[in-house]
Amino acid sequence: MYNAYAMANKPLLYIIKLGGAPIDQPEVLEAFLSSFATLARQQDTSQKNYSLLVHGGGKLATELASQLGIEQQLHEGRRITDRKTLKVATMVYAGYINKNIVASLQAKGCNAMGLTGADANLITAQKRAATPIDYGYVGDPTSVNTDLINSLLSKEITPVVAPVTHNGQGQLLNTNADTIAQHLAIALSKDYRVELIYIFERKGVLADTEDPESVIRTINTSLYRTLKEKKSVHSGMLPKLDNAFAALAAGVAAVRIGKENALLSLVKGQAGTTLQYA
Amino acid sequence: MYNAYAMANKPLLYIIKLGGAPIDQPEVLEAFLSSFATLARQQDTSQKNYSLLVHGGGKLATELASQLGIEQQLHEGRRITDRKTLKVATMVYAGYINKNIVASLQAKGCNAMGLTGADANLITAQKRAATPIDYGYVGDPTSVNTDLINSLLSKEITPVVAPVTHNGQGQLLNTNADTIAQHLAIALSKDYRVELIYIFERKGVLADTEDPESVIRTINTSLYRTLKEKKSVHSGMLPKLDNAFAALAAGVAAVRIGKENALLSLVKGQAGTTLQYA
Repeated sequence: MYNAYAMANKPLLYIIKLGGAPIDQPEVLEAFLSSFATLARQQDTSQKNYSLLVHGGGKLATELASQLGIEQQLHEGRRITDRKTLKVATMVYAGYINKNIVASLQAKGCNAMGLTGADANLITAQKRAATPIDYGYVGDPTSVNTDLINSLLSKEITPVVAPVTHNGQGQLLNTNADTIAQHLAIALSKDYRVELIYIFERKGVLADTEDPESVIRTINTSLYRTLKEKKSVHSGMLPKLDNAFAALAAGVAAVRIGKENALLSLVKGQAGTTLQYA
Repeated sequence: MYNAYAMANKPLLYIIKLGGAPIDQPEVLEAFLSSFATLARQQDTSQKNYSLLVHGGGKLATELASQLGIEQQLHEGRRITDRKTLKVATMVYAGYINKNIVASLQAKGCNAMGLTGADANLITAQKRAATPIDYGYVGDPTSVNTDLINSLLSKEITPVVAPVTHNGQGQLLNTNADTIAQHLAIALSKDYRVELIYIFERKGVLADTEDPESVIRTINTSLYRTLKEKKSVHSGMLPKLDNAFAALAAGVAAVRIGKENALLSLVKGQAGTTLQYA
């Protein structure tokens, strides 16, 4: 799978997934976007790189749904996306959050362009099967238009992707931002050396979830297996790690996990947790 | 100003502005988008052409603001865009309406991409001066990134533009869709023979506003002057005509006005009103 020669000849692409918590705090978001713009403008990196941002939703969609009296239906903690909830998600993710991030990046000298999966057919998805649980208008990605991303990056346009896709038949679908980042990372690995960076509210994967400083700096396949067996990884962290190792197995060069205020250290492997497929 | 030789050698670009009323009626919107997709796919036209759609907002933004208890402030019938209203406009125009139009066009075989003025810096605008009336977060366009449009059209991507711009300093601005269409048409006239098509709820400019069939088929500069003097044009129509003749004076090849169900006739000059700079 891994081919050092081919990797060395591919341009570097950082795919950064920004989780919900920083999006809810305007000052934290602004500071993160300043770091991201620095990275995208390639001003603080030793080598030429491209960058792409995938953002989640934060609490705004839940707040708006509540203000509109739309009841949130949950199944085992996972939201069910009925028609009204999809409308709220589309408004908040693809409209408010996406366009404010884009405008902010533009002000910081990063030529950002906001996209959903529907735009220029970037990501098609399949509506999740209604059995055993009908999650509603939720999509699992089926294809990525890598030509579009190649074309934008070659013009120094930085894609900013909202967690909304489409099924190609006119239906928008709510899609998990982690999953979008993972699918983009795998698909783009054929043309780039992709590093997939998950930004969340902690400094990295923690050995002790009670101790925010107990960052595990490196997790390889064998340690990952041990952590899973010992159940010493926080349950919310497990799907992230599963997805991360799946991405590495599918050709993504590196996966790193850490906090939004450490982006520029994180991409250099100087902060957070680095996952290694070895 | 007019140069027949230069015009003949430029590719044809239809810039279609879709007004509010059809957007509020899902079946009418779908039918219009089918026609637009036919035009954009160049299946029903005798010559090669490009297409670009600019859409307005309809009543959805007003409805959402009302549901959220945001009071609409008006000055002489014009909405004042305070911070909360801008948020609603961004959610509804750039999110819900834009992405549903894009997904629908994708299903109809038109490779649409949704854009605001912020995306890849398509349209910068200046916040309107606060005196004599402070309209709030409303922008008047100052620049158009024609390279971006050229690049998208050359890849057979059809831009779908929402009525939201940015000031380049991180501020999104609510911007009239007619004005956006006009600015795009004028700026793109250097590279294309641009026909600017205003879609609205009537069959064209009416000689008698009480008679929906009394379409004036052609209005030239002299008839326009007469209509203005006689005040025989509906007051809501006047700014549209003023803008249209300004666009013609600035190099736009043709301006046509008509109803959404006649798009394919309208672009051929077989329906609606055609404005002539002569």
